[in-house]
Amino acid sequence: MSMSSRERLLAACRNQPVDRPPVWLMRQAGRYLPEYREVRAKHSFWEMVRTPELAVEVTLQPLRRYAVDAAIVFSDILVVPEAMGAGVVYGKGGPTMTRPFEGEDDIARLADVDVAHSLSYVGGAVRLLSEHIHPELALYGFAGAPLTLAAYMVEGGPSKDLRNLKALAYRDPDMARRLLFGLADKVADLLRLQVEAGADVIQVFDSWAGLLTPDDYSALALPAVRRVFARVADLPVPKVLYLRGAASHLTKAATAGADVLSIDQSIRLDHARALLGPEVPLQGNMDAAELLGPHDRIRCQVQDQAAQTGGRGWIANLGQGLVPDIPPDGVKAYVDAVVELG
Amino acid sequence: MSMSSRERLLAACRNQPVDRPPVWLMRQAGRYLPEYREVRAKHSFWEMVRTPELAVEVTLQPLRRYAVDAAIVFSDILVVPEAMGAGVVYGKGGPTMTRPFEGEDDIARLADVDVAHSLSYVGGAVRLLSEHIHPELALYGFAGAPLTLAAYMVEGGPSKDLRNLKALAYRDPDMARRLLFGLADKVADLLRLQVEAGADVIQVFDSWAGLLTPDDYSALALPAVRRVFARVADLPVPKVLYLRGAASHLTKAATAGADVLSIDQSIRLDHARALLGPEVPLQGNMDAAELLGPHDRIRCQVQDQAAQTGGRGWIANLGQGLVPDIPPDGVKAYVDAVVELG
Repeated sequence: MSMSSRERLLAACRNQPVDRPPVWLMRQAGRYLPEYREVRAKHSFWEMVRTPELAVEVTLQPLRRYAVDAAIVFSDILVVPEAMGAGVVYGKGGPTMTRPFEGEDDIARLADVDVAHSLSYVGGAVRLLSEHIHPELALYGFAGAPLTLAAYMVEGGPSKDLRNLKALAYRDPDMARRLLFGLADKVADLLRLQVEAGADVIQVFDSWAGLLTPDDYSALALPAVRRVFARVADLPVPKVLYLRGAASHLTKAATAGADVLSIDQSIRLDHARALLGPEVPLQGNMDAAELLGPHDRIRCQVQDQAAQTGGRGWIANLGQGLVPDIPPDGVKAYVDAVVELG
Repeated sequence: MSMSSRERLLAACRNQPVDRPPVWLMRQAGRYLPEYREVRAKHSFWEMVRTPELAVEVTLQPLRRYAVDAAIVFSDILVVPEAMGAGVVYGKGGPTMTRPFEGEDDIARLADVDVAHSLSYVGGAVRLLSEHIHPELALYGFAGAPLTLAAYMVEGGPSKDLRNLKALAYRDPDMARRLLFGLADKVADLLRLQVEAGADVIQVFDSWAGLLTPDDYSALALPAVRRVFARVADLPVPKVLYLRGAASHLTKAATAGADVLSIDQSIRLDHARALLGPEVPLQGNMDAAELLGPHDRIRCQVQDQAAQTGGRGWIANLGQGLVPDIPPDGVKAYVDAVVELG
């Protein structure tokens, strides 16, 4: 049996047999690559995101280096807040909003966003990509989860504890719910746009869920992400939910309506599988810091992860996005180790 | 049955019956209090830590406001790296080291630290405190866990992923082990010093353990913290291990040799109790952000936590330290809600 990358990836998402596990890396296009930094030196981050030709160029860069099975469109989870006028600025230490969430008016402004129009550049990038990547590769579209987007909007930037969003939810649960559900509707529109433009898989990133207590995950994050998946249930592509804080929220996240759970490294793959049963495909969850270590250790870790999953219903990936200090040859060692499993 | 605060706290640590659960808050002396900021305006952080009279003054401040059952000496987990010459500087965004860990020489420098001499100011503060706090209150001494101290030393400051420490451990496991064990020995000396000076309880803070995978927790953090508790096993006081990342590492941490596990809010108390059994006393784990919410909600959350634990073998506390934005009246509402359980 020999499969194309797309066949391999879609089979893993459906828990069907594969010739070897598929592999890609979150943020595989990014600052750790010198060729990315060259493009970035000439253009602002938003220019790159909004210009399909530039987005396609940086999306293709890792595909020239590594035998990954999938590309993910170069974009940003914050395109939805940006479209409603939050004023997203990328600086050292992460993105900040020049207009953080202030209340009722912002909920109305969010409802007014016409995703097909305001975020047409995302669809444009996906469409151009689907024409330019190798026809056998899989293409991911993505969006931020409502909780994570609300966190950025209310905190005004990265936060260690989401204290402002939590304070809002504790004091005015109705407003928090309307913000989260309003975001869910736009996120669903954005995912649909990407599937219509040619995405083979869609992934929702709940990057800040790990900062919630189990009770707050149930009260705030889960209903909103369920709403997203309910609204795209008709789309004929696998749907992935990425979750940081898998050790806290795994079994609840498995009820969100996604086909695949992409998990961070807070829990072992075999433990996750034991909790969820063998029917739930998993994506993840190598610690990105492992790619700083010796290559023979990387190979052992990959083999151990394959053993933990039995190699089935598993998409090899990191537990979170690649960070700038990771050496490209560590990434190559990781991808090659997965390919060698075949 | 009416108990003094110390009796109540020690009984909870021993899983014995109490008239009501004891309560205190991590970092209850700190910047959220205006009277703390007044002292801080006149003195540097290190002056406050190193001058027993100042340390005692700020330790006593929350005791004048709240009906907490325990004080914790005002000090810092980084006194051990400071004593070996790491050059700890407190700035916005957390402490940084002017001389981060560089290798063999630093391990030798660590071994040369004479805790009784270099850190006599910690003993001095505990001794002065034991004379000045209400004689019925319990007094905590504390230290940083080896993994957490090594993280600060190798990263040179706060880190989101401990990538440098992990890279060191992957490339040179023997050096990482010697650093961690060297720290364990000094941490044990520091705990002993505080018990000899009058501390009723000792707590070890593993604040960064949550950034490790389960496998790295077993390989790096656990052996070192076990060494700490083994070396203070003879001390006739309850020993507490604080752990961030309880959802990932709980059952392993329970084998470290502590009497009580102090856990963050990544797992519910009833879930933790179900995993550990009723014999393991727990401390924690209210989300500090709850103290930003309405007071009636705070009361409900406290009652829910009491119900989860059955009120036995439980020391009410936060899941992590108090942060500057928390309103003092939210802290009061929290403490009063625990007192009302009696």
